[in-house]
Amino acid sequence: MSEAMAARTEIRLAGEGGQGMILAGIILAEAAAIYDGKMAVQTQSYGPEARGGASKSEVVIAAGEIDHPEVLAADVVVTLSQEAFDKYAGSVKPGGLLIVDSDAVHSIHMSEAVKVPIGWLALHKTGKAITANTVALGVLVGLTGVVSRQAIEKAVTARAPRGTEEMNRMALEAGFEAAELVQRKAVGGV
Amino acid sequence: MSEAMAARTEIRLAGEGGQGMILAGIILAEAAAIYDGKMAVQTQSYGPEARGGASKSEVVIAAGEIDHPEVLAADVVVTLSQEAFDKYAGSVKPGGLLIVDSDAVHSIHMSEAVKVPIGWLALHKTGKAITANTVALGVLVGLTGVVSRQAIEKAVTARAPRGTEEMNRMALEAGFEAAELVQRKAVGGV
Repeated sequence: MSEAMAARTEIRLAGEGGQGMILAGIILAEAAAIYDGKMAVQTQSYGPEARGGASKSEVVIAAGEIDHPEVLAADVVVTLSQEAFDKYAGSVKPGGLLIVDSDAVHSIHMSEAVKVPIGWLALHKTGKAITANTVALGVLVGLTGVVSRQAIEKAVTARAPRGTEEMNRMALEAGFEAAELVQRKAVGGV
Repeated sequence: MSEAMAARTEIRLAGEGGQGMILAGIILAEAAAIYDGKMAVQTQSYGPEARGGASKSEVVIAAGEIDHPEVLAADVVVTLSQEAFDKYAGSVKPGGLLIVDSDAVHSIHMSEAVKVPIGWLALHKTGKAITANTVALGVLVGLTGVVSRQAIEKAVTARAPRGTEEMNRMALEAGFEAAELVQRKAVGGV
């Protein structure tokens, strides 16, 4: 995947309002642009559904100029709630990567989804379920390499509320570890 | 201005990194979409300049569907730093509104700029210079009515870090008051 990703990578992050998916999108874009020297655009669109539960953030990352800031065919979709899954799982392009919080999404009708208990890992690795968005970033970066681990760690640390930097670093690390477990399983190891 | 604004309003918020202009954009978009029932798109673009000082956030607000999320000709530009002013003041469209923090921008070469000592008001009304982004939202909403005062107050309160809600409400109020002073002066009163 990382070869195809060099040109332009479209990422959609979706969850419930309050799960920090907008912040996660900003952190990912900042990791790409500020720390990895790429270009990035990060967008939220709010329609009538903004008053409902699902919240969505989009990031486009490229090595060069970005003409269209919109996600046209998502390379990567992350969903942290059932509603977000129902709404956005289908928007991943064929051959793309769909990451699902299996702790929150119970009806997963797509066999190619990569299931990771993101909420559970957040709660048990850091003590705070609210770090699920950071765990999700770790999983995403671990599986795709769309930005470097150093870049995402710097970006997470820079945006973490004061006093929560260490907790968020742990959450990110938990996401990296989970990605390694997924990859090991995928290649038939263990 | 409020008539023309009904169709589509393009807003660009610019300042130094760390001044919270991205958050200000998110709050403005959420005020429009969640609390005022409009549609909104909020975007950050990061190019090579992301590693420099200026940070920029864009919001498009409309009554109906938004085709192009980009700011094409800004109706409103807010600049909270000299660098942001030098870079973005020229992007306001003819007849548009340029709001400048006169406390931070010392070389203001555009006579039509609306000068408000935003940083000074933030520091002296709330004790925290960091609330300048919220004061700026108050000035912007007070002068344009692009979202309702109730909507921006709810959106600010919802996004304010826990424990800072009252401080941010005060900052917003300071912005509203400053907008009233500007308008009174503009119509020749006092």
